[in-house]
Amino acid sequence: MSPSSANITLTEKDYLNLALKLARKGRFFTSPNPLCGAVLVKNGKIIGKGYHKRFGGPHAEILAIESVKERDLLPGSTLYSLLEPCSHYGKTPPCAERIIKEGIKEVVFAMEDPNPIIKGREVLEKAGIKVRSGIMEKEAKTINEWYIKYVKKKMPYVTLKSALTLDGKIATKKGESKWLTEKKARNFSNLLRCEQDAVLVGIRTILRDDPKLTCRRRRKFLKRVVLDKRLRIPLTCQLLKEKGEIIIFTQRNSRENEKRKRLEELGVKVIPVPEENGLLAWSEILRELYQLGCAKVLIEGGAEVFSSALQAGIVDRVFLFLAPKILGKGLSFTEKLSLGSLKEAIKLKEGKIKRIGEDFLFTAYVHRYY
Amino acid sequence: MSPSSANITLTEKDYLNLALKLARKGRFFTSPNPLCGAVLVKNGKIIGKGYHKRFGGPHAEILAIESVKERDLLPGSTLYSLLEPCSHYGKTPPCAERIIKEGIKEVVFAMEDPNPIIKGREVLEKAGIKVRSGIMEKEAKTINEWYIKYVKKKMPYVTLKSALTLDGKIATKKGESKWLTEKKARNFSNLLRCEQDAVLVGIRTILRDDPKLTCRRRRKFLKRVVLDKRLRIPLTCQLLKEKGEIIIFTQRNSRENEKRKRLEELGVKVIPVPEENGLLAWSEILRELYQLGCAKVLIEGGAEVFSSALQAGIVDRVFLFLAPKILGKGLSFTEKLSLGSLKEAIKLKEGKIKRIGEDFLFTAYVHRYY
Repeated sequence: MSPSSANITLTEKDYLNLALKLARKGRFFTSPNPLCGAVLVKNGKIIGKGYHKRFGGPHAEILAIESVKERDLLPGSTLYSLLEPCSHYGKTPPCAERIIKEGIKEVVFAMEDPNPIIKGREVLEKAGIKVRSGIMEKEAKTINEWYIKYVKKKMPYVTLKSALTLDGKIATKKGESKWLTEKKARNFSNLLRCEQDAVLVGIRTILRDDPKLTCRRRRKFLKRVVLDKRLRIPLTCQLLKEKGEIIIFTQRNSRENEKRKRLEELGVKVIPVPEENGLLAWSEILRELYQLGCAKVLIEGGAEVFSSALQAGIVDRVFLFLAPKILGKGLSFTEKLSLGSLKEAIKLKEGKIKRIGEDFLFTAYVHRYY
Repeated sequence: MSPSSANITLTEKDYLNLALKLARKGRFFTSPNPLCGAVLVKNGKIIGKGYHKRFGGPHAEILAIESVKERDLLPGSTLYSLLEPCSHYGKTPPCAERIIKEGIKEVVFAMEDPNPIIKGREVLEKAGIKVRSGIMEKEAKTINEWYIKYVKKKMPYVTLKSALTLDGKIATKKGESKWLTEKKARNFSNLLRCEQDAVLVGIRTILRDDPKLTCRRRRKFLKRVVLDKRLRIPLTCQLLKEKGEIIIFTQRNSRENEKRKRLEELGVKVIPVPEENGLLAWSEILRELYQLGCAKVLIEGGAEVFSSALQAGIVDRVFLFLAPKILGKGLSFTEKLSLGSLKEAIKLKEGKIKRIGEDFLFTAYVHRYY
């Protein structure tokens, strides 16, 4: 039974919770726009709802307004929206204007838009509309944390995802890693990949596993990114055969001009970046990805890339699929990470574990942006 | 509100569930006797209950009978017991006899006693008492699995317990391991130690951490066991200062006669055992511990002992406290374990995770005995 048909009194928190749930539906396609859901309420009844479905498409508020069947209910209604309504002409006309035009009398939103050009509150209040905010703010900021970082820090939000055994191994000594986890966890893992703008691996993962790095679970083409200092990527690899944008970061002053030309002919973007301690500099890689419009980047392997990303402090969040297995000697998840004392260990904040089939998914934060 | 005072209809499963809960209360002191709880019911009301509190003390059934205040309620009542009542004279007179004497008309138990000398069902049935079994059997066998192994295999049940980071490390490169987990997890960990008959570590753990290996959380003296091939244990270590039985397994033909004498003067039991692949043979160690009356042995470290125990296949269950941290290079939980392919990885069955403060406890089985 949906809340709109339930014969019980809903609170403002319930409306915003519904807006949150609606917002989450957009998580595969809105980036770099935030996730937003909106609910319209008149006399304690939900009369309309909507969510931002994809980048460039109409905002949640507009879809909620347009979903109202009896148009004469709109004047005097209250709009519950996850984000502060926009006030500028972007890909679509400003929501604030439409809200005013439809005679909505009150707007309640969970979080302000971190983008300073959004001045919805100001515009609405000037038009005499009552505006309140802050309910469900933490929840709204949590699902839009990547957007907050993207807007405020002008850098993509970085998630590290790996499958590992309980003794911290991602592969056997010989490099065997298929499969650590069961199918259910792998399917879920692919879905998490689908939420991203880009998936990134090191060249060794390409050489060892020859992955496609595609979205099996959604019709979506991610940017697929490879760190490949010396352009060792085989022209015959699976990655290059699959449709979608491919970016290879390589060292400056590479002498692999011929290989570079061949890759560019195949449509691959080859971007030279400076080095730091013998490795491609993460700050440059992320800056480039930001320039290319990536708000969410997923690092998927292998041990060297995980280690250097953690060492550089650029990982914001981890998704670790824990397989209930012990492997012993093998390739450690953090093979090359050198921290020193226990005090210097990377603390993972707000850790949560949930079971997925026989496996477990541990999620936690390294950095937070609100 | 206890079930006896609740004004609702309880099922047989509820009675046996209560017996199970009562039984668990005895988990620190019954070994090598099993955990048992018993509930007496007359006309749908609980009239008595009891549990086996400590080895040598009265059985659950007797305590349940003796807890009944109105003695005339006993005849015609039903006894719900976790285990098949005993029929032999051991440390205490047989429960079956007493059940018959009190005029109990029916006995329902969860699991048979794996000890073949227990023929309670036979004796009771001969006396005209109705006997049924099998409800809550799995639950009863789970909390008494160590007892089942002890009786059937004549070997102690082996649990491996460790704290580790999410990347599988138990200490830094320099051996720093205090503390990986928070106090709440460490307290819980000590409580799990208190359930055991013996706690076992390798000599390196003694040399590195100088632990006491005592029960802080219960008034109990465990057997403390050290694997020390060349009798390197310092006579000044904390372990030797703390009250309680100490057993050191060492190599045969050791030339450390002087050290051995000194240790024996301190009351330590020094037991030479043969070697296998350069390590003290686990099968011999466990056989000796069985002879010494240990039904439950806890292996607490370090990496070498964990690895060789897992390699030898003698671990029955694991308790892994996962600290939400990443440590990078350091001492791996399974440093010396060599398995080969993914297929040969040790599969941990029926894995469960629960949160303990900021940390997580993962529990699972390697072997099952029913």
